[in-house]
Amino acid sequence: MHIDDIHNPVLAARLQHRIDRKTKPLGALGRLETLALQLGLILGSETPQLREAQVLVCAGDHGLAARGVSAYPSDVTWQMVENFLAGGAAVSVLARQHGLALTVVDCGVRHDFAPRPGLLSRKLGPGTADSAQGPAMSAAQCEQAIANGRAIVAQLPGNAVLLGEMGIGNTSAASLLLAALTGHPLADCVGAGTGLDEAGMARKRALLAQVLERHAGARAPLEALAAFGGFEIATLVGAVLQAAAERRVIVVDGFISSAAVLVATRLAPQVTQRCVFSHRSDECGHGLMLRHLGPDPQTPARALLDMGLRLGEGSGAVLAWPLLQSACAILAEMASFESAGVSDKDS
Amino acid sequence: MHIDDIHNPVLAARLQHRIDRKTKPLGALGRLETLALQLGLILGSETPQLREAQVLVCAGDHGLAARGVSAYPSDVTWQMVENFLAGGAAVSVLARQHGLALTVVDCGVRHDFAPRPGLLSRKLGPGTADSAQGPAMSAAQCEQAIANGRAIVAQLPGNAVLLGEMGIGNTSAASLLLAALTGHPLADCVGAGTGLDEAGMARKRALLAQVLERHAGARAPLEALAAFGGFEIATLVGAVLQAAAERRVIVVDGFISSAAVLVATRLAPQVTQRCVFSHRSDECGHGLMLRHLGPDPQTPARALLDMGLRLGEGSGAVLAWPLLQSACAILAEMASFESAGVSDKDS
Repeated sequence: MHIDDIHNPVLAARLQHRIDRKTKPLGALGRLETLALQLGLILGSETPQLREAQVLVCAGDHGLAARGVSAYPSDVTWQMVENFLAGGAAVSVLARQHGLALTVVDCGVRHDFAPRPGLLSRKLGPGTADSAQGPAMSAAQCEQAIANGRAIVAQLPGNAVLLGEMGIGNTSAASLLLAALTGHPLADCVGAGTGLDEAGMARKRALLAQVLERHAGARAPLEALAAFGGFEIATLVGAVLQAAAERRVIVVDGFISSAAVLVATRLAPQVTQRCVFSHRSDECGHGLMLRHLGPDPQTPARALLDMGLRLGEGSGAVLAWPLLQSACAILAEMASFESAGVSDKDS
Repeated sequence: MHIDDIHNPVLAARLQHRIDRKTKPLGALGRLETLALQLGLILGSETPQLREAQVLVCAGDHGLAARGVSAYPSDVTWQMVENFLAGGAAVSVLARQHGLALTVVDCGVRHDFAPRPGLLSRKLGPGTADSAQGPAMSAAQCEQAIANGRAIVAQLPGNAVLLGEMGIGNTSAASLLLAALTGHPLADCVGAGTGLDEAGMARKRALLAQVLERHAGARAPLEALAAFGGFEIATLVGAVLQAAAERRVIVVDGFISSAAVLVATRLAPQVTQRCVFSHRSDECGHGLMLRHLGPDPQTPARALLDMGLRLGEGSGAVLAWPLLQSACAILAEMASFESAGVSDKDS
């Protein structure tokens, strides 16, 4: 799949000049400056404006969860979807704080939800199949989930999406995708998820090693995605691809959302140009994953926040959101040495 | 000077319980959870509310600047004060973004400002004296600056202050204070400031070594403050002490604001309980300084952001502000396992 290279040397030079002439020492706003440059390139403007940003939370259950890879029961997936919709979850509270619209997608939760505003039903099944016994989903389901994600984003207003997820067991799927797609030893890719104890971790590691081995042939992106799941990750892959194709700003949450981006980059490497990695998760493996999501193989993706978050839901993406607004405000509103009559270093 | 210990074991336990019962794995919101706990303890509530937060930027010039310790001329201090007031500086733009009131204090800028709203004149002189020749200020000036800072904060509305500064040459003063008050080798305390090149850095290091040696007797906090300056730092020391005494939330910016906090902690160790360190500056020495500003000698202060900022002005404090609001929103609005009907780990 082809997605344009957004790099435009003329615009990049203009943006950099604009940033450098702001009333501050060169580079003194650090990561906020590189963020401003990136947002300008994505939105094709020296004064990019973020419009009607949308939080999209994709939820799905995992067959593997029945084997005890999570500290929580699968029922928590649907219960948390209800919590998102009722406004009581972290992502709901934070989205409200920042005035962001929140859409929850049932990509395959093991529960029947009553229809209501803010909930989209794009169910591929009552959770994925058990990846310890066979592929988590069929190739057709995988393709459909990606198509769903694309169609959902195509319908969303605005020019920025903040991506989150919910699914008990989905750190396992994300760890398996990381190991399968990058070749890193599984041990470096597996973490405590929602909070496994040492015994639970040992069980998770052993089980995931079996699952990885069972699907030893599934190393191409879509094969790996179908083998390990989940429906919410596959839907997010579609969302990432569509948002990238439309040059929306993509604000990526933590480990699982990043796994969706990882799969998407294997289909279209340019997607990371549009991705703002909101935070470095405390989940073991996320740092490793960010190494594969940078602008080039030598440069890891640099997340905005490093606050020991490991919640998912899009909570980290929403928490970091004001930083993107700050970057745009700096570009649009901050005075230059010339306009403010401030002496520059070399004057 | 005595400032109360805010630690209240009953309230702390209630806050921690409240945080732990929120619908998320234990600790999954990381640093945001410890921030919520701290804000609850400062404001004495399980649902602390930040009211009418105030950005206070103290400005002053430094006699030492004439010796070329900065990449910029001293005139930039007054020019930037004009820029703050005109709304074009980074801190102005960011404060506007977050709806924060901004007050600029002329603590001793080498310039006569026309009076106007948002500017307080608390001038102790046309910049400090040259600390390479004698103390930057007299003991009386130092005392007056602290009194000014106290009086200013006592008049501010609200329950939170965000502290910033402006003063060409003030990384030198902050580095000298760090070295003098902690005993760390000066070389570990001196950085490039607004962007000195290698030759400039060598000059700065050599000069500061002489200044530190010249004032070898000034190791008590107020003596060191008077010896090295500046007026804006001394005014900030007063602001920190008053805000701490009133149990306001103190949001600390970067290296220079932290130097003011360092002096204040030597007068009243409990002030750091009220301090939220907004970011870890790129200025060499700030990481070291944060080691001395933690809750106890074994625990460095952990800053919220680490974005390579090195601008000052309070820009980092304002940039991090929404995170404090998020922490309060989580406490007040997020559902508990019980209220949302979500299954907990142990259920």
